[in-house]
Amino acid sequence: MNRLYHFPLSPFCRKVRLTLAEKKLEVELVEERYWEPSADFLRRNPAGKVPILKMDSKMLTESQAICEYLEETHPTPPLMPRDPEERFEVRKLCAWFDDKFHKEVTSNLVYERVNKKVMKLGYPDSKAVKLGAQRIKYHLDYMAWLLDQRRWLAGDVMTLADFTAAAHLSCLDYISDVDWNRSTNVKDWYAKIKSRPSFRPLLADQVPGFPPPSHYADLDF
Amino acid sequence: MNRLYHFPLSPFCRKVRLTLAEKKLEVELVEERYWEPSADFLRRNPAGKVPILKMDSKMLTESQAICEYLEETHPTPPLMPRDPEERFEVRKLCAWFDDKFHKEVTSNLVYERVNKKVMKLGYPDSKAVKLGAQRIKYHLDYMAWLLDQRRWLAGDVMTLADFTAAAHLSCLDYISDVDWNRSTNVKDWYAKIKSRPSFRPLLADQVPGFPPPSHYADLDF
Repeated sequence: MNRLYHFPLSPFCRKVRLTLAEKKLEVELVEERYWEPSADFLRRNPAGKVPILKMDSKMLTESQAICEYLEETHPTPPLMPRDPEERFEVRKLCAWFDDKFHKEVTSNLVYERVNKKVMKLGYPDSKAVKLGAQRIKYHLDYMAWLLDQRRWLAGDVMTLADFTAAAHLSCLDYISDVDWNRSTNVKDWYAKIKSRPSFRPLLADQVPGFPPPSHYADLDF
Repeated sequence: MNRLYHFPLSPFCRKVRLTLAEKKLEVELVEERYWEPSADFLRRNPAGKVPILKMDSKMLTESQAICEYLEETHPTPPLMPRDPEERFEVRKLCAWFDDKFHKEVTSNLVYERVNKKVMKLGYPDSKAVKLGAQRIKYHLDYMAWLLDQRRWLAGDVMTLADFTAAAHLSCLDYISDVDWNRSTNVKDWYAKIKSRPSFRPLLADQVPGFPPPSHYADLDF
């Protein structure tokens, strides 16, 4: 059985979970308190990060590398197009969300409001939270602009870029930090992703002390 | 003519320059002061980052996505193996250097000591510099451990993982922050990479106000 060491509100773990589920690969989830790393955990990944996917005897780390590996070894259904330019667009957007969006939005909101409390690192930094709340608007507008021209974020088919973006947004939605009224096409796009069977386990996640809002698991939000 | 908007001591730009040069793709270099972004620059890349590769009419951003695109469109000479597990190892190590190594070492040393001065952001934070100087030892030992088992970082052939690591180390070597006496096999590996024709333009770079040490461009360092 495959095993994924993860943390429920990590967008990088969610991206791997969505990719596994889309490809119908079953996985046992093991929650990892990566900020209190055990010797075993550091042996599995000296980078001290989640996700870690144990598959056969291999320990796979780094979410984008894991997803590319799953795509190459389990190509059905495809989450990457065939054309190099379209593939570039997917990878560029994955990097946009995992790097820029993560630094400006996910870190400033999810990490400040949830992870810090769970990790007993004190109160959220209000400047960071304010910055994150400002920056998410700009990112939602960028997504709206992309979706004005395309059915999905990277083109006319659903790809890893959509799951990467949705992984981040779902963590933010858990703490009610996404204004779904800002753009109809972003809301419609998220509704399509959210209704996929692969999304269901994410919507069932609960972080103790942080109950999600009622709209979080509602497909008609 | 292809054009690369870059900053000389950016490891991400160096990685793309090395990949282009290995694949014998000529490129015109345009230095971009990305911390003083012009409207034109932000139009080329709304993320406000370098490198940006203009190729035909396309504007390509995000260094790993660019290198994967170049690999797919110009497969000779290959910088990625064919086997999915070996490809995973390359991508995992690229992420290791571009994420973990960058955060712990390159940012703490190159950005604190050089970029901050160039950008007129004040003096280096001595705590960050001290941390970077500590962490690089751990990373050099990790590389030494990898190279004990393999000829190159990701396996027995030279790949993008080697160029990614060398891009970071070359920036650090520009400010004499690599202790080449720490491990013979890391030094031998770097000597092999450094002597490649693709590396020569990097060794000719100069940042005004920061002359490189004499060993920097010396192939027999």
